[in-house]
Amino acid sequence: MDLTETEISSKQIFTGRIVDLAVRTIKLPNGETASREIVKHQPASAAIAVNDKQEMLLVEQWREPIKELTLEIPAGLIDETDASPLDAMKRELNEEGGYRADYWEKITEFYSSPGFTNEKLYLFYCDTLTKLTDKRELDPDEFLTSHWFSLAELKRLSAQGKIVDAKTLYAMSVWENMLLTGADAKE
Amino acid sequence: MDLTETEISSKQIFTGRIVDLAVRTIKLPNGETASREIVKHQPASAAIAVNDKQEMLLVEQWREPIKELTLEIPAGLIDETDASPLDAMKRELNEEGGYRADYWEKITEFYSSPGFTNEKLYLFYCDTLTKLTDKRELDPDEFLTSHWFSLAELKRLSAQGKIVDAKTLYAMSVWENMLLTGADAKE
Repeated sequence: MDLTETEISSKQIFTGRIVDLAVRTIKLPNGETASREIVKHQPASAAIAVNDKQEMLLVEQWREPIKELTLEIPAGLIDETDASPLDAMKRELNEEGGYRADYWEKITEFYSSPGFTNEKLYLFYCDTLTKLTDKRELDPDEFLTSHWFSLAELKRLSAQGKIVDAKTLYAMSVWENMLLTGADAKE
Repeated sequence: MDLTETEISSKQIFTGRIVDLAVRTIKLPNGETASREIVKHQPASAAIAVNDKQEMLLVEQWREPIKELTLEIPAGLIDETDASPLDAMKRELNEEGGYRADYWEKITEFYSSPGFTNEKLYLFYCDTLTKLTDKRELDPDEFLTSHWFSLAELKRLSAQGKIVDAKTLYAMSVWENMLLTGADAKE
């Protein structure tokens, strides 16, 4: 069976600063039509940043959609000034943590929830960090603090419900795999 | 610094079948105001379903937001008829795969992308599967096929860009950890 669906028409509902919303009419594989609500969202970069003490960097910030303070890996939208997803992540690591990393590796790229949104994330691993003296400013509406945690501490925080987002849980699992298999990114 | 932000007002933009969109005005930690675009989405359940040959179940389906056929772990929205997230997942495993599982374990719960949406996912592990003779119907606008893959095959599919969503990559990493540490869910 050919599972491909085709767009018949699309109605723009909202054009915002971060998200756009459209309702699209599509043709199903059986020829019938159906409606899909689609949220467009800019792509973002995120990083597993590990220091020399084998601790991972998390940032604490308020997330209004869930009205919670969360601990997440550093991440941010890729904007027009960024030459690439990696460039965006280097900027975010500076802004959110105040660090430069000398070793970088791309882990993967993925969609957050492709059933309703095209938001894409580029995930990197980095280490060999240096604290910067010329840290860049956060965005004016961005408030966060940064913290370092060992894998054991991360697992405890996750069990306590303090780590609640997909990318950070995935990052923890990837890092644990790297430690378990001795597959240090640099080898 | 207290990072908590407070809602001042909220304007409903769209109320849909799957998502709602609001623009909320909030008070920042420094007393200034800012605007946040917030997408409400029903919670969903997903499962790492493993058969006796140590293969994981994926479903192939069209994802209109990214206009791609994807391979993802079975998942679905939790609806009013479901007594619990686990109940929803048992129903989905029947609808999407045609299977019943006799062993179930909760892995974790998480938000897909809490910067802009409250979509929450409950992730389960299950095995000891039986093919059902009384498979339930899919939703009328849902078309998919199901397939089994070993961990090595999953890694190859991921490298080929056929597995592109956060929950499935996370599920693969969790399952790989379980296999590496011998932490079979049943022990």
